[in-house]
Amino acid sequence: MTRVHCTQLAPRVADLPHNRELTAAAVRGAAARGADVIVLPELATSGYRLNSVAEAASVALTPHDPLFTQWGTAAPDSVVVGGFCELGTDGRLYNSAAILDRGELIAVYRKTHLWDDEKLLFTPGPEAPPVLDTSHGRIGALICYDLEFPELTRKLALNGAELLAVPTNWPLQPRPTGERAPEVTIAMAAARINHLAIACCDRTGTERDTHFTGATTLIDQHGWIRAEATDTGTAHTDLDLTASRNKRLTPHADLLADRRPELY
Amino acid sequence: MTRVHCTQLAPRVADLPHNRELTAAAVRGAAARGADVIVLPELATSGYRLNSVAEAASVALTPHDPLFTQWGTAAPDSVVVGGFCELGTDGRLYNSAAILDRGELIAVYRKTHLWDDEKLLFTPGPEAPPVLDTSHGRIGALICYDLEFPELTRKLALNGAELLAVPTNWPLQPRPTGERAPEVTIAMAAARINHLAIACCDRTGTERDTHFTGATTLIDQHGWIRAEATDTGTAHTDLDLTASRNKRLTPHADLLADRRPELY
Repeated sequence: MTRVHCTQLAPRVADLPHNRELTAAAVRGAAARGADVIVLPELATSGYRLNSVAEAASVALTPHDPLFTQWGTAAPDSVVVGGFCELGTDGRLYNSAAILDRGELIAVYRKTHLWDDEKLLFTPGPEAPPVLDTSHGRIGALICYDLEFPELTRKLALNGAELLAVPTNWPLQPRPTGERAPEVTIAMAAARINHLAIACCDRTGTERDTHFTGATTLIDQHGWIRAEATDTGTAHTDLDLTASRNKRLTPHADLLADRRPELY
Repeated sequence: MTRVHCTQLAPRVADLPHNRELTAAAVRGAAARGADVIVLPELATSGYRLNSVAEAASVALTPHDPLFTQWGTAAPDSVVVGGFCELGTDGRLYNSAAILDRGELIAVYRKTHLWDDEKLLFTPGPEAPPVLDTSHGRIGALICYDLEFPELTRKLALNGAELLAVPTNWPLQPRPTGERAPEVTIAMAAARINHLAIACCDRTGTERDTHFTGATTLIDQHGWIRAEATDTGTAHTDLDLTASRNKRLTPHADLLADRRPELY
């Protein structure tokens, strides 16, 4: 079994020193609770509602920043996936996720589907996210709005992902009474149709004009919710990620083999 | 506004005379209530749990069957989408949907994704479903398991569908207390990520070893449920199908334009 932790935070916009401490403490806390996989929110080090390219640049980090070493030291036996505002060697800003395994940075994924005003700050990532063979399973990382593109979740399933780790910052939207956040419904559907576990780590709080949903959700490969957080704090569950490998549901039904790619 | 009706039925397996009457009465009843679009379940004329190719053949219809004329006469101003067991001119059996507009059969769609044992009875359809310009909007028809392939719902959205009419026979599956049928969650997600209304007409009852879910659901283009039926009978709602045409959610977000097809 793989113990997956999502730590729902409320970063402060453009306050890098605060967010360094906040995220390092979150990683340390999850590791102390035995987390094998630790997911933090999108843009956890910078906050979300950055006013300008200049403000975003002022809190951007390179993948060589000591913060990631700090995360790795705090969780030397875990996989860590957390969002940050990245300054590329090309001088551009990206909405990225750092992925660490056993203390080392093993990949940086740059969000490929930028939501709304993010397009005014960030460059869209040039490559689809990798599926990484980690010490705790085959893991793919997406960021927030990426999850609403089933082409991408399908691609990661076809590439053998057993778990999608999804840092998010879901802006609060109106919804009918009793309904879940729509992004959670989309994640549940993506999990079920791909028979693939998904861990969405959201954030809470308000930045400037934006309220966040606070809907961290861990979903198993049947599409059912195993743990949630609605306030700041952790949600965690133990998942059998090897179950994600089998796409055969019945003797004659197989979620991937039943595709008809010649028709799409 | 377009008044969409789903009539949830409990056909009898392999009892064609009964199901002829049942479906014709359903179309007549929906038309009498002012339905612009009428959706019936999958395999409504044959029942679902057909034991053998021979039994399926015994209740198969060609698209020229007088039943479809009867449906058309019963709803001369409506679009009707209903499932039937089709005998093709090639001698093969298909799990099909008849689509009528203003009394005339305008298309037959043959299910492209056959679920489980259906593969022992039917030939998978050779073509993706069309998007039809009808007198009540641009409508695409899918059948049941088809809806779980986001490649197909996306294709119909890209082809301009404003409403997906989905005859289904959802076998009852275990689910956690308080959760909707998983197929409904999948339909809600498909509606929201494509900004497209979806009307799923399910069935009730039990045939041989199979219990049906009875989860007819009409979903608007935001992915919210507008009407449901849990027992035999109709669910209906008025939908502004023209709203499905606009995929721009915010000044800088557009659900279809934001795709990155070069990455998938």
